[in-house]
Amino acid sequence: MSTSASPVTAGSGLGEVLQLFRGRPSLTRADVMQLTGLSRSTVNQRLDALQAAALVVPSGEESPTGGRPASRFTFHRDRGVLLVADIGATGMRTALCDLKGEVRAERELSIDVAKGPDAVLSAAEEMFTGLLADAGREPADVHGIGIDVPGPVDFDTGQVVSPPIMSGWDRYDIPGRLSLAYDCPVLVDKDVNAMAFGEHRSHYPEARQLLMLKVGTGVGAGMIIGGEVYRGADGAAGDIGHIQLTVEDTENEPVCRCGNTGCVEAYAGGWALVRDLQAAGKQVGSVDEAVALIRTGDVTAVRLARRAGRILGHAIADSVSLFNPAVVVIGGQLAAIEEQLFAGIREMVYRRSLPLATRNLQIVATRLGRRSGLIGLALLLADGIFAPERIEALIARS
Amino acid sequence: MSTSASPVTAGSGLGEVLQLFRGRPSLTRADVMQLTGLSRSTVNQRLDALQAAALVVPSGEESPTGGRPASRFTFHRDRGVLLVADIGATGMRTALCDLKGEVRAERELSIDVAKGPDAVLSAAEEMFTGLLADAGREPADVHGIGIDVPGPVDFDTGQVVSPPIMSGWDRYDIPGRLSLAYDCPVLVDKDVNAMAFGEHRSHYPEARQLLMLKVGTGVGAGMIIGGEVYRGADGAAGDIGHIQLTVEDTENEPVCRCGNTGCVEAYAGGWALVRDLQAAGKQVGSVDEAVALIRTGDVTAVRLARRAGRILGHAIADSVSLFNPAVVVIGGQLAAIEEQLFAGIREMVYRRSLPLATRNLQIVATRLGRRSGLIGLALLLADGIFAPERIEALIARS
Repeated sequence: MSTSASPVTAGSGLGEVLQLFRGRPSLTRADVMQLTGLSRSTVNQRLDALQAAALVVPSGEESPTGGRPASRFTFHRDRGVLLVADIGATGMRTALCDLKGEVRAERELSIDVAKGPDAVLSAAEEMFTGLLADAGREPADVHGIGIDVPGPVDFDTGQVVSPPIMSGWDRYDIPGRLSLAYDCPVLVDKDVNAMAFGEHRSHYPEARQLLMLKVGTGVGAGMIIGGEVYRGADGAAGDIGHIQLTVEDTENEPVCRCGNTGCVEAYAGGWALVRDLQAAGKQVGSVDEAVALIRTGDVTAVRLARRAGRILGHAIADSVSLFNPAVVVIGGQLAAIEEQLFAGIREMVYRRSLPLATRNLQIVATRLGRRSGLIGLALLLADGIFAPERIEALIARS
Repeated sequence: MSTSASPVTAGSGLGEVLQLFRGRPSLTRADVMQLTGLSRSTVNQRLDALQAAALVVPSGEESPTGGRPASRFTFHRDRGVLLVADIGATGMRTALCDLKGEVRAERELSIDVAKGPDAVLSAAEEMFTGLLADAGREPADVHGIGIDVPGPVDFDTGQVVSPPIMSGWDRYDIPGRLSLAYDCPVLVDKDVNAMAFGEHRSHYPEARQLLMLKVGTGVGAGMIIGGEVYRGADGAAGDIGHIQLTVEDTENEPVCRCGNTGCVEAYAGGWALVRDLQAAGKQVGSVDEAVALIRTGDVTAVRLARRAGRILGHAIADSVSLFNPAVVVIGGQLAAIEEQLFAGIREMVYRRSLPLATRNLQIVATRLGRRSGLIGLALLLADGIFAPERIEALIARS
């Protein structure tokens, strides 16, 4: 008895007709009439306008026959490009994408996010310049820029807000900085939101509710609700790494990077695993080295990984009880030790959550791997740029 | 850069025009033209059809002047009635409402939900019959029935699923039962969902995300996301009473009604408070008696209430970290000991959650009190009955 959403074709203005093309390989005039309920003459008007703006082009699937008007049309994915940068704690991936959000070229760089916004964004801009040059594109071809970061973001302003590990970034105006070189919309989001959207769109489009857990240096979560990224009232949703495991016994709890004690990531984040392995006399200096040691089967390392799995499972069980997702996807560097982590995660989730919440639940490892942020960011950016209400801005820039 | 929702007038069919009237005291033809963008002749057609179906009537605000067509119209809230029953663990409230969901008459009864569906629903039906008779209405006037229960519900089928405290109700077909006497849609939902919707619509309509915590015999939560009840993939969302407070030390944890140990409600639910007061030698036999004792200022009782507040605060802090609501509303019987509970709740939430998530957060006591479920249920039912896509069914029954 719930009220269903309006159809995508609501209004069936130019922007809505463009949406139809974005989601399909190609369409005929008759297809558009059928999908929208618009008359033939209105459909012709819409298609003329979209072709004039080079947003839709005749489909290459048919051979041109002199003088006859094209019968199939397709979204003009090469009208311009998108640039995206997935900024992590210790490295960055950048890509040039077509307007469908498909990655066409990609670059990678090791850089510590704590070097601050100027150093990190300069490096990103340099990579963007290289990607454009390689593709034979100009800055004027860039329809949108997407940046994701490993910290909380005020999505409306694009500002990073009180990030625990991004020293120097608090309140930095990322869109303002990028707009000095590029005249286009700039989207800034939390990395886990982009990852969640990437996994959802690429592999679980039918799941209306998805939880993406990233276990890297820290621990964070992104949520999809109703097919969209759920950000909460202030963009702070998904802060699973800092929920606390015990209530009053703070004596023996590990101190977290956030200043509290007993947080999930203070037990089960990559940095905590490195700390515990070092305390056990192991020679590991990074999360990747910790992962490598666990994969050798070292008994101490495996024991710690299983414990991390149970701690993560506890936090996921809480999230499943509250949020009841259809799919939980585990990503981040520690997803590489799936075998050791997942037993503990599943044990806790099935032990703790209501049977109704777990009877159809899928708990799976990331299928996009380290590219989930980059891919999700490009898809999120494309959705924003081509939202029906932006149609006038799109036409104006052609 | 997020994509905004379609306007309410999307499509502007009969159902959408009816929606305009539901949300406003009255409208002129010119108002409808302006709100929908429809032509005068189409607006006239729509109004004629809605009047013919008695869904819209000339507004009483003007004096009739012989032969002149009415200029203002209003939603016909008395075309029929809605019946709702808010079923709690130990009592039930029922109401007869107009089609706007406004309560016109109300009844109350003490009955244990564990008596099973036949006894409880028979009592509800008897109250419905009385309410109809008092209002001079027939069963045929009933446009919809809403029932809420203190347990998980599969919203699509209206079945109660594996309820911890509702013995005999598992998989019971509530809509099937009610449809023997009434030929109308039957909505069944979890009590906290109705409460959340009631508080949202009545007092926080601008809050896109709201968390309603019910602390009665048990502990549960309802969530509003984007102005709608969020139910999760299986209708199990909001199960805050059974998230667990510690991970591995299960020796000293209290056993919960759900069969696990260490759940939030095993520490802070009304039944746990009664258990602990009894263990401390106090003569209390019910949650209401426990509340009364706490309100006398009894030192032991106040200490236990404050402890319950901190435990609830811990669970709310987890929810705030994950879900980042704009408003948290506390209801249920224990909301009556606001003074003792809220200090502990606020202490834990502000200590534990990210500043970004708490800077604008409101934590408030219920304003609808014990009527929040009943009021929310009526509003939820009205929304379902008059959803634009149900317009044909509505017209057919006139």
